[in-house]
Amino acid sequence: MQQNYKISISYDGTNYHGWQRQPDKKTIQGQLETALKKIFSGNISVIGSGRTDAGVHARGQVAHFKTIPRIRDKELFQALNGILPKDIRINSLEKTDPEFHARKSASSKIYQYRIYNSPDTDPFFIRYTLQWSSPLDLRLMKEAALLFVREADFSSFSSNRLLHPVRKVFSTELTKKDFEIVFTIEATGFLRYMVRSIVGTLLEVGRGKIPTERIEEMFLEKKRSNTSPTAPAKGLCLMQVKY
Amino acid sequence: MQQNYKISISYDGTNYHGWQRQPDKKTIQGQLETALKKIFSGNISVIGSGRTDAGVHARGQVAHFKTIPRIRDKELFQALNGILPKDIRINSLEKTDPEFHARKSASSKIYQYRIYNSPDTDPFFIRYTLQWSSPLDLRLMKEAALLFVREADFSSFSSNRLLHPVRKVFSTELTKKDFEIVFTIEATGFLRYMVRSIVGTLLEVGRGKIPTERIEEMFLEKKRSNTSPTAPAKGLCLMQVKY
Repeated sequence: MQQNYKISISYDGTNYHGWQRQPDKKTIQGQLETALKKIFSGNISVIGSGRTDAGVHARGQVAHFKTIPRIRDKELFQALNGILPKDIRINSLEKTDPEFHARKSASSKIYQYRIYNSPDTDPFFIRYTLQWSSPLDLRLMKEAALLFVREADFSSFSSNRLLHPVRKVFSTELTKKDFEIVFTIEATGFLRYMVRSIVGTLLEVGRGKIPTERIEEMFLEKKRSNTSPTAPAKGLCLMQVKY
Repeated sequence: MQQNYKISISYDGTNYHGWQRQPDKKTIQGQLETALKKIFSGNISVIGSGRTDAGVHARGQVAHFKTIPRIRDKELFQALNGILPKDIRINSLEKTDPEFHARKSASSKIYQYRIYNSPDTDPFFIRYTLQWSSPLDLRLMKEAALLFVREADFSSFSSNRLLHPVRKVFSTELTKKDFEIVFTIEATGFLRYMVRSIVGTLLEVGRGKIPTERIEEMFLEKKRSNTSPTAPAKGLCLMQVKY
């Protein structure tokens, strides 16, 4: 009988065209499905908690897939990690409730965005952080970050307009350690480019281009403006999906 | 009049065929000389403190080069970092004594080797650490690490035999934090593959294949044996060169 498997996945997204399977392009979903095909000799769909864009990383992406178990869970876990490229790793694998759905069952997600704030680039950070040379006003950015904690129409902070653009942000946090600024955000879900648009806006605040009050106006406008540029993918990482 | 410039360089060595210039291959020295050629429109030799092998990283490699100054130091620094790929960075640049020689003037060097000791690979560590799945006896490895602090013929821990194989190791340190074991070594200089051979030996000790007493024997043998396998390049990083 078919079983439902839940997996947690980490990946360095640098060399991939995002999560979603695409013909002739290296994607995370594609790599997972190829690995499963090798093990089970049949097509198995892997459903993720959501797509991550090209270049975005994950430490705790979650997905599910259904198949008839032929080998033990531990062996399947090891076989997958044996086949997958080293920049994609299964963190855990378990059989789960047949009703469990990686996307639909999710209650919230946590993303992190990392900014390396220094005039000098560090070659060991370039894949995982946005490098920002000029000074940023951290106090203002922290203040602004809190303004995103709300249930609201986030159309102004997304690349596309949806029928249901309301999302609930539970918490945001902005910290700095040495040269690194880390923005953490937890929400019920995210519109496309939402975290990167929020980070783009925070950077505008941090460099003194817009006052924090502008954010309230942006929420009212309900459409994207040039005051929310999209921060690059490489600083973004999906940390956790909660159920 | 020609000036002597001293630079400190960091690089992620993953995508390079080591330090030394080679025709048709991407190397660190090659990239630096190409960048200088663009700025000064002439061939300038960059002399490093020593070669690093393919895949080895650096946080504080030092080099010197001589040229007639045409632009200010700060501009030269910025021009170099502007031209160089982002995985190679100049940390600092200054005019120095005409007699200064990056290799000959060096009094000691510090290398670090990182081991990610966990059954699970972390995709964000694979470029910079050796991944080691099975348990390692850290107490024994620490004990063994101290046996390398000496002035001695290190032929047993090198890939080639030299006329002058005596090196003086000032200090070694082995620490563990979370899953990461870090081995740090400072010496007057290093034979080829010396750090990687020492680490290979420490791993043999850590997994119980050889007793620490074997190390004393190896020093006496003065030739390489299969008890000092070479640990892979990617875990190694040149941290500092002292003058």
